[in-house]
Amino acid sequence: MGLYIGVDVGGTKVLAAEVTADGVVRRTARRSTPGRRIDAALVETALTEAVFEVADGRTIDGVGLAAAGFVDAAGARVAFAPHLPWRGEDVRGRLTQRWGTPVALDNDANCAALAECTHGAAQDTCEVLLVTMGTGIGGALVLDGRIHRGTQGMAGEFGHMKVVPDGQPCECGGRGCWEQYSSGNALVRFARDRIGQDPTVLEQLCGGNPDLLTGPMVTEAAEDGDLVARQAFASVGGWLGVGLANLVAAFDPELIVVGGGVSAAGDRLLEPARTALTRSLVGTGHREIPPVVRAAFGPAAGVVGAAELIRSQARR
Amino acid sequence: MGLYIGVDVGGTKVLAAEVTADGVVRRTARRSTPGRRIDAALVETALTEAVFEVADGRTIDGVGLAAAGFVDAAGARVAFAPHLPWRGEDVRGRLTQRWGTPVALDNDANCAALAECTHGAAQDTCEVLLVTMGTGIGGALVLDGRIHRGTQGMAGEFGHMKVVPDGQPCECGGRGCWEQYSSGNALVRFARDRIGQDPTVLEQLCGGNPDLLTGPMVTEAAEDGDLVARQAFASVGGWLGVGLANLVAAFDPELIVVGGGVSAAGDRLLEPARTALTRSLVGTGHREIPPVVRAAFGPAAGVVGAAELIRSQARR
Repeated sequence: MGLYIGVDVGGTKVLAAEVTADGVVRRTARRSTPGRRIDAALVETALTEAVFEVADGRTIDGVGLAAAGFVDAAGARVAFAPHLPWRGEDVRGRLTQRWGTPVALDNDANCAALAECTHGAAQDTCEVLLVTMGTGIGGALVLDGRIHRGTQGMAGEFGHMKVVPDGQPCECGGRGCWEQYSSGNALVRFARDRIGQDPTVLEQLCGGNPDLLTGPMVTEAAEDGDLVARQAFASVGGWLGVGLANLVAAFDPELIVVGGGVSAAGDRLLEPARTALTRSLVGTGHREIPPVVRAAFGPAAGVVGAAELIRSQARR
Repeated sequence: MGLYIGVDVGGTKVLAAEVTADGVVRRTARRSTPGRRIDAALVETALTEAVFEVADGRTIDGVGLAAAGFVDAAGARVAFAPHLPWRGEDVRGRLTQRWGTPVALDNDANCAALAECTHGAAQDTCEVLLVTMGTGIGGALVLDGRIHRGTQGMAGEFGHMKVVPDGQPCECGGRGCWEQYSSGNALVRFARDRIGQDPTVLEQLCGGNPDLLTGPMVTEAAEDGDLVARQAFASVGGWLGVGLANLVAAFDPELIVVGGGVSAAGDRLLEPARTALTRSLVGTGHREIPPVVRAAFGPAAGVVGAAELIRSQARR
């Protein structure tokens, strides 16, 4: 079977995991990657420690890396990542040499899509649109059974498609980006702006301080019947459906998979999205509307997909 | 070399043409397809007349059809077309039998993309976004050197991506569709709403009656220095760039080709589009911005692409 390790390289932590050929996570190891100022050598040391802790003296057959950033079309370099120190270095080459084992690299959304296609919600499906709703919106396209990476490896940046002219300012420098209306941040902003209008669960959860509000608190409050929290999901879910309709008009996928932290809310997010998708999509009388389903993998999507990435390369 | 005929089946006319392996149009024949109420048999008779007029007694090696409508994923049926009578009939099967020669079918935008990739502005390019600006916006995606048709053959409906919440009503039943802001219709509407504010060329061209204004008149007036006509192109071109930025964020293409009637205005349309694309696109500091070029083929794109479609199938 071989020992294949997937590593999720995020802005604040590294998670490494041994993943079986069936997509099951066995041993894991974590390291923190503290702050934006950390340099590339420190991140690579954190990665090395986590990988060798998982290996525990065994021979490693390959390591896959899921990085939260732009990975070039060749899968070798992290061109840019807001929360990682790499700026075009040959990460794959450096770590292959350092670890003496094959290394593969892709961005976290593409790895999540690979996990869903191989072991998750999109098995045996050739045309898949994956949208991950975390802090912002990430995504990946599976076309004809393969991840569509684009000319520069930058396909799938759905979160920065503009849905409102001169709308909310975005961290990217633009305005009116989709993720300003449909994401974990959008969920929290919606709730924060309205907290106290109807003082209930939400206010208790954040101790009366809206600045401390988080996405999971909004999810929990909605479960407990908080009206503002439920409205927040209706808004964010509705905008999710509007953006999905745009992507369906362009790609015509067979299936839509929604992952990321916000998807933990399940149908509370997905029902308004389905309704808005049906209302917004062109030609609904003459086509099937693709199902919108929740991703099978939660926080493990990155490591499972990264392990599958290197395992599938080894198979060739 | 063989005799391959491409046919463009539009809402008001049929254009058939003998097209050489180099993409050169030789003999052509036209028929009108009068009105929406025409039935399928009449359209098929018009097609037959045009095809056999072009053949002029020679043996036909194959006919390709470019239809202005939704063609199913198998390339056999026109599922729906606003200006054509077919509603799911096996057009390809029927005409193959009637003509005794191989027939291929695809929608007009996909045929135009094939023409550009084989003989036009996108030769030797694997990742191409084609946008056709006519009455509305049509489009096609070439990914990894092949037309991406989607699960139901409905990919590339870019014109109905929503760019303005609750915006201009669209013929599709939705609101705020991209083609309401960037198309031949949008160009005429912009000019019509402002005509007479600064009475010049535009007013003369339509004889003082804004209802008679057409897209080509706006193009001509802009050439002659008419201010309103030039503003119309700045608006429509700017919106073109905004929508292109959304598509580039999603697909990351190598090249953008703009065709259709409005593209005859060249840089008057494309310059504001390039400016808006650069301003709207995410991550411009970390990526190449794909070139935006005018299509090589004008009204012949459909017949050239349709002929190439059947010729390439015969090669296999």
